[in-house]
Amino acid sequence: MATCGLIEYDAASSEVKAVYDDIMAVRQTDYINNFWKALAHDPSTLRRTWESIKQIMAPGELNALTKEMIYLAVSATNQCPYCIASHTAAARKAGMTDGMLAEMMAIVGMANESNRLASGYQVEIDERFK
Amino acid sequence: MATCGLIEYDAASSEVKAVYDDIMAVRQTDYINNFWKALAHDPSTLRRTWESIKQIMAPGELNALTKEMIYLAVSATNQCPYCIASHTAAARKAGMTDGMLAEMMAIVGMANESNRLASGYQVEIDERFK
Amino acid sequence: MATCGLIEYDAASSEVKAVYDDIMAVRQTDYINNFWKALAHDPSTLRRTWESIKQIMAPGELNALTKEMIYLAVSATNQCPYCIASHTAAARKAGMTDGMLAEMMAIVGMANESNRLASGYQVEIDERFK
Amino acid sequence: MATCGLIEYDAASSEVKAVYDDIMAVRQTDYINNFWKALAHDPSTLRRTWESIKQIMAPGELNALTKEMIYLAVSATNQCPYCIASHTAAARKAGMTDGMLAEMMAIVGMANESNRLASGYQVEIDERFK
Amino acid sequence: MATCGLIEYDAASSEVKAVYDDIMAVRQTDYINNFWKALAHDPSTLRRTWESIKQIMAPGELNALTKEMIYLAVSATNQCPYCIASHTAAARKAGMTDGMLAEMMAIVGMANESNRLASGYQVEIDERFK
Amino acid sequence: MATCGLIEYDAASSEVKAVYDDIMAVRQTDYINNFWKALAHDPSTLRRTWESIKQIMAPGELNALTKEMIYLAVSATNQCPYCIASHTAAARKAGMTDGMLAEMMAIVGMANESNRLASGYQVEIDERFK
Repeated sequence: MATCGLIEYDAASSEVKAVYDDIMAVRQTDYINNFWKALAHDPSTLRRTWESIKQIMAPGELNALTKEMIYLAVSATNQCPYCIASHTAAARKAGMTDGMLAEMMAIVGMANESNRLASGYQVEIDERFK
Repeated sequence: MATCGLIEYDAASSEVKAVYDDIMAVRQTDYINNFWKALAHDPSTLRRTWESIKQIMAPGELNALTKEMIYLAVSATNQCPYCIASHTAAARKAGMTDGMLAEMMAIVGMANESNRLASGYQVEIDERFK
Repeated sequence: MATCGLIEYDAASSEVKAVYDDIMAVRQTDYINNFWKALAHDPSTLRRTWESIKQIMAPGELNALTKEMIYLAVSATNQCPYCIASHTAAARKAGMTDGMLAEMMAIVGMANESNRLASGYQVEIDERFK
Repeated sequence: MATCGLIEYDAASSEVKAVYDDIMAVRQTDYINNFWKALAHDPSTLRRTWESIKQIMAPGELNALTKEMIYLAVSATNQCPYCIASHTAAARKAGMTDGMLAEMMAIVGMANESNRLASGYQVEIDERFK
Repeated sequence: MATCGLIEYDAASSEVKAVYDDIMAVRQTDYINNFWKALAHDPSTLRRTWESIKQIMAPGELNALTKEMIYLAVSATNQCPYCIASHTAAARKAGMTDGMLAEMMAIVGMANESNRLASGYQVEIDERFK
Repeated sequence: MATCGLIEYDAASSEVKAVYDDIMAVRQTDYINNFWKALAHDPSTLRRTWESIKQIMAPGELNALTKEMIYLAVSATNQCPYCIASHTAAARKAGMTDGMLAEMMAIVGMANESNRLASGYQVEIDERFK
C-alpha cells in the first residue's frame, strides 16, 4: 500500500484539486492514476512533477508515441513494476501496437546485454566517438 | 584497455573477418567499432551478438532513428560510457538532431525520477493497469 | 515466499537465537523481521550482516534518524520493495515525519534524474572536482 | 567530452545567462559547473532542472547538509562519476566532515548489500510493514 | 499479468510450437515456463532468445551448475523477481545445495557493497590492473 | 583521484597496518590494492570490509575460482570500472582462462537481457517457482 495512502479527489485540498483538474484536462480523461494520488501528500512534489512531465511529454520534434515508448523503455530497464504497467497503458493509448512493443522490448533487452558486454570487457571508447 | 585486447581486421581469423565484413556491408561503413574488436576474442559471442543486433535494429514498425534513440535511452539509464558514446554517434548518423536528443534525454531523466518516486512511495498498481 | 523459508525463534539453533536476542536487545523490540528469519538458514551471513548493520547504524557523527533516511534513500534508488517497506517503518520509528519523507524522496527522484543527465550528456568532471 | 559541448557564460543567450546568474546568486559562487554548461544547449531542461534542484535542495525540515549527503548517497549507489565528484564537493562545502562521509558511505555499501540479500532470498514483506 | 498474455502450447502457431518442443527436449521436461509463453507473442524474439540461451547455457569450460549460479547472481543483483524465482529452481535442479546458494548470495551482497565503496570513494584503478 | 587520497603502508597507523599485513598474508602478495588504501581513512570500514571479504571468499562448497567469477559477474552487471579491473585480475590469478571469461560474460549479458524481458513484459511467476 502506498506509504502515505492515496488522496482521492473529493478529499483533496484546492491546491491538489487544481493539479488533478489539469491532469484530467491535458490527458482528456476523468481518471487520476494512483501515482498522482500518492504524491498528493506532498503538493509541491505533485505540482513540480506534473508540470515537468506535462512539458516533457508534449509533442515536439518527437511525437507523443515515440516519447511514451522511450519512457516505457527506461521503466523496463529499471524494472519499475508500477511505471511499466502505467506506461504500457499510456503507450497503447498513444498508438503503440503489439508489434511496436515487441520491437521496443527487443531493443531494451539487447541494449541491457551490450551495455554489460562493453563495460565487462572494459572496451575503450573509439577516438572517433569522443 | 579492453580485457583481452582488440583484434584488428588483418589479424582476424576468417570466421571473425566474415562478421566484420557483414558489419561493414550492413552499416555501409569501412569502420569496425572497438566493441566488435573486443568481442572478437570469443567468435561465438561476436557472431551471436551481431546477428541479434542486425535483426533487432533493422527497420520494422519502428524506423531506424526511433530504434537508435531507444537504444541510447537505455544506455543513458544504465550509464554505460562506451554505449552512450557509440550510440550517440549512431543515432546522429540515423538523423537525430540536437533537439531530438534533448527531448529524449529529458524523458530519460524524468522516467528515472518517477520510477523511484513510484517505487519509493510504494504506489500500488491501479486495477485498470493490471 | 523466502527461498529457504523463515526460521522462527523457537525453531532456531542456539547460534541463531543468540543473534535474534541481540537484535531484540539493541532495537528494544520483541519482533524479528522476516529478513533475519530468512538469513538464519546461513548463520554466518546472519551474524556477519547483523554485526555490520549494528555497527554501521549506531549513532556517530550522524544521528540515527539521518542514518535511517540515507538507508531508505538507497533502497528507494534500488527499488527494493522489502527494504523500502521495512526501512520506512524504521525511519519513522527513528522520528522521520511525513514532511521529512517527502523532502528525502524529492532528492532521491532528482538525483536519479541528474545522474542520467550527467552521464547521458557525457559531461566531463570539472578540474576543481578532481 | 560533453555531447554538445559546454556553453560558457559569455557565449550564452540571455535566457541561459539568467539561469547562470541565479545559480551563482543562490549558491553564492562565481563558478558554473560543467553540468549546467552542458545542459545549456537545451534551455528548457536547464531552467526546469535548476528550478527543481533549487526548490528541492533548499533547507526545509531537513537541513542543507543532510540533503547534500542524501544526494551523494544516491549518486554513489548509481555510480555516476560526475555527480559523485560534484556532490562530494557540495557536501563538503555544506559541512560534511571526513567522518560523516565515512559513515554515509558505510550505509550506502550496507544498503546495497542488504537490498540484494532481501531480493535474492525472496523475503516476503512482514505484515506489519504493509 | 503478462502484458500480452501467455500462449499455451495448444494455442501456439507451428513456429512457436517448434521452439516449445526444442525447449522441452533440451531441458528434458514437459513444462514450459511463463517466460517463454509471454515471449511467444513475438516469435522472432522467442526463437532468438531461446537459441541464445541454449547456446550460452550449454556446458563448456564452465559446467551447468556454475553457469546457473552466475545467472542467478546477476538476477539477484538486478533484483528481477521472475528470474530469481525461476533460476533458483533451475540452479537447484542443476545441483545447487542450500550451502552453495548461501555462499553465492554472500558474494552477491558483498560485491554490491564493494562496487559502491569503490565508486563512491572514487578509487582510481591501479596501474597493474589496466 | 580517491576522495580522501590513498594511505600507503609506511604512512599507515598500526591499526591499518595490521589489516594490510593480514591482506598480504592471506593473499600471498606484497601488494595492497588502491581500494584498501582508499578505505584506510576509515579504519572501521577497512577492517569490517576486509574481514567480510576474507570470510566470504574463502573456499567452501564453492571453490575460489567460482567465487571470483561470481564476484566479477556482479561487478560487470553493476558496471563498476574499478571492481571489473581488479576482479578480472583476481579471477585470472585464481585460474580463469579466456574461455571461462567468455562464457561468464555471455551469461552476464544474457541474464541482463532476460531480466528486462521478464520485467518489461510483466511475466507472472509460475506457481511451481513460488
